[in-house]
Amino acid sequence: MTTNAPIRVALLGCGVVGSQVARQLLAHAEDLRARIGRPLELVGIAVRDLSKPRPGIDPALLTADAEALVTRGDLDLVIELLGGIEPARSLLLAAIGAGASVITANKALLAEDGGSLYTAAEQSGVDLYFEAAVAGAIPIIRPLRESLVGDEVLAVKGIVNGTTNFILDRMHSAGVGFSEVLAEAQALGYAEADPTADVEGYDAAAKAAILASLAFHSRVRLADVDREGISLVSQDDIAAAKEMGCVIKLLANCSLSADGRIAVGVHPTMVPQGHPLAAIPGAYNAVFIESRYAGRLMFMGPGAGGSPTASAVMGDVVTAARNRVRGTVGPGESAYSARGITPPGEVESRYYVSLQVTDEPGVLAKVAARFADHGISLQAVRQDGDPVNSRARLGVMTHVAPDSDLRATVAELESLAEVGPGITVMRVEGH
Amino acid sequence: MTTNAPIRVALLGCGVVGSQVARQLLAHAEDLRARIGRPLELVGIAVRDLSKPRPGIDPALLTADAEALVTRGDLDLVIELLGGIEPARSLLLAAIGAGASVITANKALLAEDGGSLYTAAEQSGVDLYFEAAVAGAIPIIRPLRESLVGDEVLAVKGIVNGTTNFILDRMHSAGVGFSEVLAEAQALGYAEADPTADVEGYDAAAKAAILASLAFHSRVRLADVDREGISLVSQDDIAAAKEMGCVIKLLANCSLSADGRIAVGVHPTMVPQGHPLAAIPGAYNAVFIESRYAGRLMFMGPGAGGSPTASAVMGDVVTAARNRVRGTVGPGESAYSARGITPPGEVESRYYVSLQVTDEPGVLAKVAARFADHGISLQAVRQDGDPVNSRARLGVMTHVAPDSDLRATVAELESLAEVGPGITVMRVEGH
Repeated sequence: MTTNAPIRVALLGCGVVGSQVARQLLAHAEDLRARIGRPLELVGIAVRDLSKPRPGIDPALLTADAEALVTRGDLDLVIELLGGIEPARSLLLAAIGAGASVITANKALLAEDGGSLYTAAEQSGVDLYFEAAVAGAIPIIRPLRESLVGDEVLAVKGIVNGTTNFILDRMHSAGVGFSEVLAEAQALGYAEADPTADVEGYDAAAKAAILASLAFHSRVRLADVDREGISLVSQDDIAAAKEMGCVIKLLANCSLSADGRIAVGVHPTMVPQGHPLAAIPGAYNAVFIESRYAGRLMFMGPGAGGSPTASAVMGDVVTAARNRVRGTVGPGESAYSARGITPPGEVESRYYVSLQVTDEPGVLAKVAARFADHGISLQAVRQDGDPVNSRARLGVMTHVAPDSDLRATVAELESLAEVGPGITVMRVEGH
Repeated sequence: MTTNAPIRVALLGCGVVGSQVARQLLAHAEDLRARIGRPLELVGIAVRDLSKPRPGIDPALLTADAEALVTRGDLDLVIELLGGIEPARSLLLAAIGAGASVITANKALLAEDGGSLYTAAEQSGVDLYFEAAVAGAIPIIRPLRESLVGDEVLAVKGIVNGTTNFILDRMHSAGVGFSEVLAEAQALGYAEADPTADVEGYDAAAKAAILASLAFHSRVRLADVDREGISLVSQDDIAAAKEMGCVIKLLANCSLSADGRIAVGVHPTMVPQGHPLAAIPGAYNAVFIESRYAGRLMFMGPGAGGSPTASAVMGDVVTAARNRVRGTVGPGESAYSARGITPPGEVESRYYVSLQVTDEPGVLAKVAARFADHGISLQAVRQDGDPVNSRARLGVMTHVAPDSDLRATVAELESLAEVGPGITVMRVEGH
């Protein structure tokens, strides 16, 4: 191969992110050549619909035959921006098999079956990069894979889904309910027509699995993530959070337990106002890392959108292209720890529990006794009377306790005659 | 070389950071071996004083002959934690000449003569890594060198010196003067006995030069940085900042001007309360990056200290060791842009100007006319009378203007009979 031979790139998908990547490849050709040492050449773009107009993109590059594109045999890099499991997985495996390094933003695939991709890349001696899969433009994959690789990461927590952060933010500031804000987010293009992946936490859970894998050097999959979305978060919950000096965020939470297992979950969580994650606005993402030696680090930035995601893709493109020029590859999978997953019931958290009780002597003592029976100590209790109905609302903040003990306590509280239906429970960040 | 041959490491310097690096190399040997693919072996530590007790460190590793250590010829990695220009530079060049990859936390040397190190490393085919040189444990070098390498960075701003951030923080919260807080910081070990490098901004300026070089793909040296320390920041300045809804931070500011040149400076700067950098407390560091495609990113974490700095060093150690195992090297110098430096007088900023004036009709008009004569428009003006002395304090916030115009305006104001001595001027972050 001659010194100035171009690095040949194919693109799978030409939606919001794909078309932006194509534009950046063309607009910054000279800078990219200088940074890589050889020119990049975009040789083909696989799309579903050939007839759709794509301004600024040479129609001769387009093809509907993605498989033929990735197996043509002369590609250095394949960028996958299709999303979903299939045909993305088959196409990536075919590209790797044909000797191309691959760059993907596909969190669902990585969380479902990243191991197959890593193994194939290792066998073919090619790179697998995926900075854009988590937290958009925020460099978080590379810091975990490389910068912190000499340290011991203890926890990774973050706001990794902009749609739910936008919705919760609006629920706090505008005082309107989930459904109303969701409709608004859909109208603004911040939420999909089918919002399930975002609002039910699947997207955040996939990202949590990826972050936990890298942080703890162990394979973690989507199925390992204890997941809960935000569709049941009510204005009462928001009001209760405010009263406790907190805001509700959908938090991805990955931590290493004392016994070496990994706890990984996604839950609506009350975050105290002073916590750096409490102030992350709207469609922003933020990831908080706690490590043994580095201490507490936080990374924040735009979590989605065509340009920011394309920036992350392009960083990987340059890195993978530089590796090609040098005839080498970057870091592969690091899953040597092979840790177990802590069952959700054993994961510990602080909790806020809100219940309606009859306003009569001895009720608080009865409720408190149920917590004490399960070894759960209480950090704060608030009681607001409703004299007209002789009922009161009781808000209880616990100290850290295992999820199963909390659930058992709540089940017992539900059976008390003095406690009304509709006990709400929410995790609280912190110790 | 057999597959399990150790990666041989030498350490130059065994102070707070060096001894922590040595401890981590020994304590995490098994994890490091798994992450690298081969074991790390610490073969020697060069120190100035052999007789000093060093708990947990095998005295047989110690040597006072650093030159003999780095030229022994069988080293894979040399970690330089001596600081200062010499003998650090000669030792690093000797290590590189002998075929070792080098890791350094030496911001002064990198800002003074990083080009020589890069060139030597390129010629010898070895790595030069320096994540620990800027912002301690915060991964900022690698994101700039690799994650954002497909983007166009427009500006990098940050709080990169923990000592001055601690001092300014205390001046704001405790209401005491610079000298008193400096003495306190020295007593707590947050400031050196000779605090010049920190309080006069040399340390931050070296880091600014390094950040600007990486961000803009061009060599930027310490001498290119327009530098001002915090020793002249007064309680009056703090009070004025509070009145304007700002806090004073020592800000490193690197930006790309419209003509493609680089503006790089370190100045005490008023930062509006809502800006993410305003909230960075005490000894923390934070770096804010603005890029064309990724948008605004922020990174924060501990900016100094033995463990955090050692974490950054160890990340580089693992990365450089992995490269050795693969027989490759990471990214080299990227200075192809070869941009000019904007002269300090042409750099634009908002300014706050505070002056004492006689409290009589027409003074404000006269002062305002001087700004207008230089084409500087005013964003806000505050006048506080002092009826006893018939004097008033005038605080003026300008829109963005070139530094030279601002200085010329201030010189003219000083010559006005109605204006008292001691005009204070401070930059204000934002547009």
